[in-house]
Amino acid sequence: MQPLVITSGEPAGIGPDICLQLAARPARHQAVVLCDPDLLQARARAMGLNIDIFTWTPGQPAPFGDGELCVLPVACAEPVQCGQLDPANSRYVLSLLDRAVDGIEAGHFNAMVTAPVQKSVISDAGIAFSGHTEYLQQRAGVDQVVMMLATEGLMVALVTTHLPLRAVPDAITRELVQRVARVLNDSLQFRFGLHSPRILVCGLNPHAGEGGHMGQEEIDTLIPALDELRAEGLQLIGPLPADTLFTDKVLARGDVALAMYHDQGLPVLKYKGFGDAVNITLGLPFIRTSVDHGTALDLAGTGQANPGSLETAMQYAMTMAYHSSQASGRSPSAQAPH
Amino acid sequence: MQPLVITSGEPAGIGPDICLQLAARPARHQAVVLCDPDLLQARARAMGLNIDIFTWTPGQPAPFGDGELCVLPVACAEPVQCGQLDPANSRYVLSLLDRAVDGIEAGHFNAMVTAPVQKSVISDAGIAFSGHTEYLQQRAGVDQVVMMLATEGLMVALVTTHLPLRAVPDAITRELVQRVARVLNDSLQFRFGLHSPRILVCGLNPHAGEGGHMGQEEIDTLIPALDELRAEGLQLIGPLPADTLFTDKVLARGDVALAMYHDQGLPVLKYKGFGDAVNITLGLPFIRTSVDHGTALDLAGTGQANPGSLETAMQYAMTMAYHSSQASGRSPSAQAPH
Repeated sequence: MQPLVITSGEPAGIGPDICLQLAARPARHQAVVLCDPDLLQARARAMGLNIDIFTWTPGQPAPFGDGELCVLPVACAEPVQCGQLDPANSRYVLSLLDRAVDGIEAGHFNAMVTAPVQKSVISDAGIAFSGHTEYLQQRAGVDQVVMMLATEGLMVALVTTHLPLRAVPDAITRELVQRVARVLNDSLQFRFGLHSPRILVCGLNPHAGEGGHMGQEEIDTLIPALDELRAEGLQLIGPLPADTLFTDKVLARGDVALAMYHDQGLPVLKYKGFGDAVNITLGLPFIRTSVDHGTALDLAGTGQANPGSLETAMQYAMTMAYHSSQASGRSPSAQAPH
Repeated sequence: MQPLVITSGEPAGIGPDICLQLAARPARHQAVVLCDPDLLQARARAMGLNIDIFTWTPGQPAPFGDGELCVLPVACAEPVQCGQLDPANSRYVLSLLDRAVDGIEAGHFNAMVTAPVQKSVISDAGIAFSGHTEYLQQRAGVDQVVMMLATEGLMVALVTTHLPLRAVPDAITRELVQRVARVLNDSLQFRFGLHSPRILVCGLNPHAGEGGHMGQEEIDTLIPALDELRAEGLQLIGPLPADTLFTDKVLARGDVALAMYHDQGLPVLKYKGFGDAVNITLGLPFIRTSVDHGTALDLAGTGQANPGSLETAMQYAMTMAYHSSQASGRSPSAQAPH
């Protein structure tokens, strides 16, 4: 298998730190870190980590772990101070993403894992940037991506993501629900190796509307949307009340939960995952997983950051790459990099 | 202390069953069950439980458990078949509630615990009834009650309850948030013995609006509402993103979570409580706790119902009664029954 590529993200934050912290651990993976090599060296010294940092070129092995780290070098525009955001380095942050996608498209990497960026400083640099997901979606030219968060034993996908609550009910259209469910279903098949994924679907309203007593959207939109999808062969359970769906007994009946909006699905996931979740973008022509924490500027260089989410994001990326390679040729959405 | 009173609820459902099941256990409490005694005898026989059922009169001891059950008799209008709803018995169901409140007002009971009712059959009988909470609120003549759910180690109160999601943002007014927070704060002081309760408050929007990027309600409504409450002395933390609030690290900083709406707060609570939660109505002049499950008509008479939620509801009611008696005289909201 080709190596993963890890974009180390905002240089003043903990992205470089957690890459180095994982490289210090005994486990060995195949992964390449996109970063400024001088920054990595300086950060390793600041944290007292003794890491052999090699410059990687395509085609070489890419050992990651056990004190070794392969870097694909991209130079920062300005020297980096831990915790000090500098708009002059915003282009650098985006070039890490571009370089990762280029490498995947060239067949050098089989998946990308992203460390956190700081949206505000990218905006301060005068660059329109609303987030990793949107940037990668635009770069890939796909109509619909799906945000899914995962932690041990639970995966939750969202129909809508970062909308004001007031805008959610009108955003939940039959078309959107169907597009999201299809991307989710395809991805679980080809990226997760589930032959016929069972999707537990939340209602929009409390008690899933209780037969129209607490909102009409289940009757007018969700139930017809799900029925049409069932006719296409999707295995859907619901719409279910969210506070019934997220119990072990019901969760055992499905592979993934599909929530209608952010705060319906993510509190349970974050609670179960002790605040550590992996953010997965489905629907791209490549695999992308991400840590689900921010840049933690105050922790940069201290060695106090927790690399657990990055480790889990790498594990998900490797699992998804494995299943994608197995499924390669069965579906156009399962592009295995060769 | 005076006994609890338990309303056994819909006679064709599992309410009578779970009362009998708890009475069969070795633990001993002081509690009186409001029910038709013939129904209780028949249900005990159906379940093969050998329970001594005594008719209780005010002032007597009310042993509950270890094979004994004290009943305050109310006769059903029609004979009851397990699982068969009969609108002719709907008045009976409501008379259990009235009799419980009468007994509390007369000082015979220190708290009420309610088993489930079936709203639909009460409506079928031509009686306007939207739920226990609303019925008791009207009976007590109070302006604001608060629904709080509790499970071991977590309590979640709601600003809005059974509204369509579409109606939630406009319902979240400064006045409502403040009325609910005050009832919650007073109740935690006088019913739970917390001197200065720490209330963790969710935002309305994802990421609590992220400084106005995902909704204005935090800036326009919540933050000013909370600031005014802080000036009154309430200890409030927030508004916080719901998916941050419901993590152990943040929960440890507070005594209770206040969610803006049903599906923001209850999925975590139900998940943590394995589907078993206690529903507590705050703001009434008396203590009311409830099971948080339905009538489970198909299980009535089988002995397969789980009395765990009723047991927990009784424990919460006893704890609240104890604290209320300790606090008696310190606040008008802490009416201890004497």
